Amino acid sequence: MIEDKNQQRTELSNLGEFGLIEHLTKNFKINQKSTVKGIGDDAAVLNFEDKRVIVTTDLLVEGVHFDLSYMPLKHLGYKAVMVNLSDVYAMNGQATQITVSIAVSNRFPLEALEELYAGIETAAKIYDIDVVGGDTTSSTTGLLISVTALGTVSENDVVYREGAKPNDLLVVSGDLGGAYMGLQVLEREKEVYKVNPKNQPDLSMYTYIIERQLKPEARKDIVKLLQDLGVKPTSMIDISDGLSSEILHLCKHSDVGCDLYENKIPLDPQVISACEEFNIDSTTVALNGGEDYELLMTISQEDYPKIKGNPNLSVIGYVTEKSAGKHLVTRADTKIELKAQGWKNFED
Amino acid sequence: MIEDKNQQRTELSNLGEFGLIEHLTKNFKINQKSTVKGIGDDAAVLNFEDKRVIVTTDLLVEGVHFDLSYMPLKHLGYKAVMVNLSDVYAMNGQATQITVSIAVSNRFPLEALEELYAGIETAAKIYDIDVVGGDTTSSTTGLLISVTALGTVSENDVVYREGAKPNDLLVVSGDLGGAYMGLQVLEREKEVYKVNPKNQPDLSMYTYIIERQLKPEARKDIVKLLQDLGVKPTSMIDISDGLSSEILHLCKHSDVGCDLYENKIPLDPQVISACEEFNIDSTTVALNGGEDYELLMTISQEDYPKIKGNPNLSVIGYVTEKSAGKHLVTRADTKIELKAQGWKNFED
Repeated sequence: MIEDKNQQRTELSNLGEFGLIEHLTKNFKINQKSTVKGIGDDAAVLNFEDKRVIVTTDLLVEGVHFDLSYMPLKHLGYKAVMVNLSDVYAMNGQATQITVSIAVSNRFPLEALEELYAGIETAAKIYDIDVVGGDTTSSTTGLLISVTALGTVSENDVVYREGAKPNDLLVVSGDLGGAYMGLQVLEREKEVYKVNPKNQPDLSMYTYIIERQLKPEARKDIVKLLQDLGVKPTSMIDISDGLSSEILHLCKHSDVGCDLYENKIPLDPQVISACEEFNIDSTTVALNGGEDYELLMTISQEDYPKIKGNPNLSVIGYVTEKSAGKHLVTRADTKIELKAQGWKNFED
Repeated sequence: MIEDKNQQRTELSNLGEFGLIEHLTKNFKINQKSTVKGIGDDAAVLNFEDKRVIVTTDLLVEGVHFDLSYMPLKHLGYKAVMVNLSDVYAMNGQATQITVSIAVSNRFPLEALEELYAGIETAAKIYDIDVVGGDTTSSTTGLLISVTALGTVSENDVVYREGAKPNDLLVVSGDLGGAYMGLQVLEREKEVYKVNPKNQPDLSMYTYIIERQLKPEARKDIVKLLQDLGVKPTSMIDISDGLSSEILHLCKHSDVGCDLYENKIPLDPQVISACEEFNIDSTTVALNGGEDYELLMTISQEDYPKIKGNPNLSVIGYVTEKSAGKHLVTRADTKIELKAQGWKNFED
């Protein structure tokens, strides 16, 4: 699991800052019509014509957001892009460009950064976005990646966190809890490895949940699906911190309440079996696990026939008046108040 | 010099990530017409109409780009914004929005981040830009600031690094070397402080150069000046890494050579006297010091009457055919090849 593929080791200082940026970005191609000027000047120049422009940014920090003992650098590059694109899709928009800045210590050879950028390039290719800028600098300790994503959306299509109305349906894409359970498996294997580095773990029964953790996909396809179905959500948010936290965001911004049905939360069989194995409640994992990068939205009741039976979308509850509060309706049909735990980055 | 104003100390963990962002950005106002939605959703939404959009990003890392033993956090916040705006102005554009992401360790109390954000807010107010997004996360060690700046420019006004033609004049705004000499003074005082913390240094003779280091100003005024004078540079770049490195960038992108006249390089009297005191050659400082955030441009000979005698602009040389090479013409009238040193972030 923990591999050292870096046979070759080229020191970053051999290239210098300009040489490094040029080297890492030389394969990047410009495909978007809106990119007038990409990497290579003081700034990129873009032409979005009359479209609205979406901007979002996220930082990933070694030791906080990722652990390089089981996160391959190529996957990390891919994931750093996904985390940002997911926010663009959550506005019901199309991602078009990103900038990528990294701070990296001398312990990383050039070959490591090439892996990281290979992941970024793969993501850019698959999601059809241009890498138009960035910064590369040294850090005193670990690795840090800062990505800013740009996208477009027409004025009529943009979907905010506010806009949910009582009786709207609460809908989620895909399934939840996989990324968190994948992390649990990886953390356990890391401990096993520490004790016995020669142990070759069989992770074949965890492939889906490990992939959810290491190589999440932002739901560009859902934005297209909604368009094809003729559904414009009344509010939308991406699930980075856990379902519970995101529902509360929608409720707060839209000034409404909600009933979420425990038995409607979509879970993959691997999540359920891993939860049994680790003796964790699967609802807790779905509510608070985070990093699934699915889209949570509310849609008008009249749009229900359009999404009914679609395997990509699950109705998990509905919007209520604010005064009704925010509740989880359990399998035992009791109502408990929804609370957010999510990530607590600044805990000691 | 090295002060501890943090009488009060509120742990970041008291607020949590969402509380922290809300707290730090609650005073930020939206002034730009192009900002449709600022902080508070998955992403910001902007409307640039038919203008070209400029995007640039820079990372500042503690221990690499700044030293908090003499850099007040408020100044650091201000400088982090300037560094990015400078790149927008170098495209001959107007800065409109920024996003600000920070990674910060638990050794910083909330009050420290309030200082940092006060500097960002001051910069945003003075330069008329909106803070529309960002990310706040913990780091395992120091402080890191990642800023992305957006701006606009009309299609006809954008100025790239390419475009310089033989016989164009090489022109620079302001004066050079101040930021580097300010850093030398601050580094020396830091050493003095280590030996004798009670020493109260008299820095009054260094006020200008220290301010150039701690609180640089991006040259928004120069973009306006050029517009008022009816001058569109044929190429332009901002001076972050030193005059020499930037001239070489313009020459490379424009496929030309240049003659730079040593006796024409604008130097403030404080730079000259500090260079004498530190026994450093002032030309070397101007060529390689960096961080002055002035604008270097080339303009057509026919525009010379428009800028002649303007105290904000100095003609420092001219553009030649590529085959003529890139030279510094010394005070002794000898030609030596221009070489870039600039910052070498990745040196061991």
